[in-house]
Amino acid sequence: MQRYFIEPLQKNGDHISITGEDASHMARVMRMVPGDKIVCSDNTGMSMVCELISVAADHAECKVLEVYEDRSSLPVSVCIAQGLPKGDKLEWIVQKGTELGAASFFPFSSSRAIVKWDEKKGAKKTERLGKIAKEAAEQAHRSVVPVVQSPGSFQDLLKMAETYTIKIAAYEESAKSSETSMFAAALKQTRPGDSILCVIGPEGGLSEKEADALVSHGFQLCGLGPRILRTETASLYMLSAISYHFELLG
Amino acid sequence: MQRYFIEPLQKNGDHISITGEDASHMARVMRMVPGDKIVCSDNTGMSMVCELISVAADHAECKVLEVYEDRSSLPVSVCIAQGLPKGDKLEWIVQKGTELGAASFFPFSSSRAIVKWDEKKGAKKTERLGKIAKEAAEQAHRSVVPVVQSPGSFQDLLKMAETYTIKIAAYEESAKSSETSMFAAALKQTRPGDSILCVIGPEGGLSEKEADALVSHGFQLCGLGPRILRTETASLYMLSAISYHFELLG
Repeated sequence: MQRYFIEPLQKNGDHISITGEDASHMARVMRMVPGDKIVCSDNTGMSMVCELISVAADHAECKVLEVYEDRSSLPVSVCIAQGLPKGDKLEWIVQKGTELGAASFFPFSSSRAIVKWDEKKGAKKTERLGKIAKEAAEQAHRSVVPVVQSPGSFQDLLKMAETYTIKIAAYEESAKSSETSMFAAALKQTRPGDSILCVIGPEGGLSEKEADALVSHGFQLCGLGPRILRTETASLYMLSAISYHFELLG
Repeated sequence: MQRYFIEPLQKNGDHISITGEDASHMARVMRMVPGDKIVCSDNTGMSMVCELISVAADHAECKVLEVYEDRSSLPVSVCIAQGLPKGDKLEWIVQKGTELGAASFFPFSSSRAIVKWDEKKGAKKTERLGKIAKEAAEQAHRSVVPVVQSPGSFQDLLKMAETYTIKIAAYEESAKSSETSMFAAALKQTRPGDSILCVIGPEGGLSEKEADALVSHGFQLCGLGPRILRTETASLYMLSAISYHFELLG
């Protein structure tokens, strides 16, 4: 069933009204008709199987048939803090990271980042990334859309870290020195409900100074195996491993 | 250190001569000079730290200083059998899969694949994918380049499967029915040196008939967590989990 995220205001008792792009998508792209079923998620973790009463390009109405709770979120809340990468890499880090269960994304500028975002560009990018996250969440059958935070500085990252239970950073030098135990050790000490902050540097990696600052703020520097991963691959590795550890390995 | 793959013929005693694109890359892109060090891999798992004796755009000479064995391969040999996806997805499945340690890739056509490759297109694509694998292996510091096999049919896939120890297929219906134990169970019964064949369907997934055929050929159908992954994400999840299981979790 096709899935759509709704705002609280769209729901009135057991009736949901859908307008804008979603209504147009239902009528024009999916060619839905009354009687068809969809899933609406209210982004609080509640999903509803609904039956369409009316469908037009500008407005659709449906009735809630069944309500069920979120089964699609990781048992731990993972924030991907990504050093600003080049080109459109951040767009697909957000798309793939959403599929893989990230709870939020925090793009940050750092000493080796080539890309710089001013406030205007940052706002525009954040909005676009939010749209990508929403679409990826719908496609991945997630009932919560991850939050894409406004880009910040490395100092903002250190400040933000205070609120997380587990803090890990993918560090190329750790990989090169065959460090292979820290990441698994961190996951083993993580309990369901904990929050994990995963830091990944930009293409040039984290500087030694930044790595030291992270350690002094309670981060563990991890290698992710003997191969050197590109910046856009590290977060996918971490999220896949976290899913495997908590959702499959049990 | 920059890494290059060499053919046996390029090595003469402890001297290696490099021509073609690699020499041009060293001289023009990396601006290397005599005395600079590089790593040469002979694609048998042996890597050599070398010192440059001469560098020109068409020819470079270097001397082997140190030889070491492969430390970059997964302890299990993983083949990613990917149902032909749309657009350039296969290119980055090969790029990312190479970073994550795949030993080989087998693109196959299946009932729900929209993309069709004739022999000519297949040969051209395979050559291009091989180049992407080589570049990704150099960047990931791998000492072996994964093999990109010529595309085949679903029947070819079933035939090929006979040579693998462990056979698993990512199956959307398994994910939807909350199947979460098969993939981890398969990895738990895998021993270092074993070969794993991971099958991923195209965008439309594997048909029920194809899933049945896989099962009757000794495959286990796996869910990869409660979220529905796109075809290009499933192989990255599987490779990351395999690396985590065997290289980090220990």
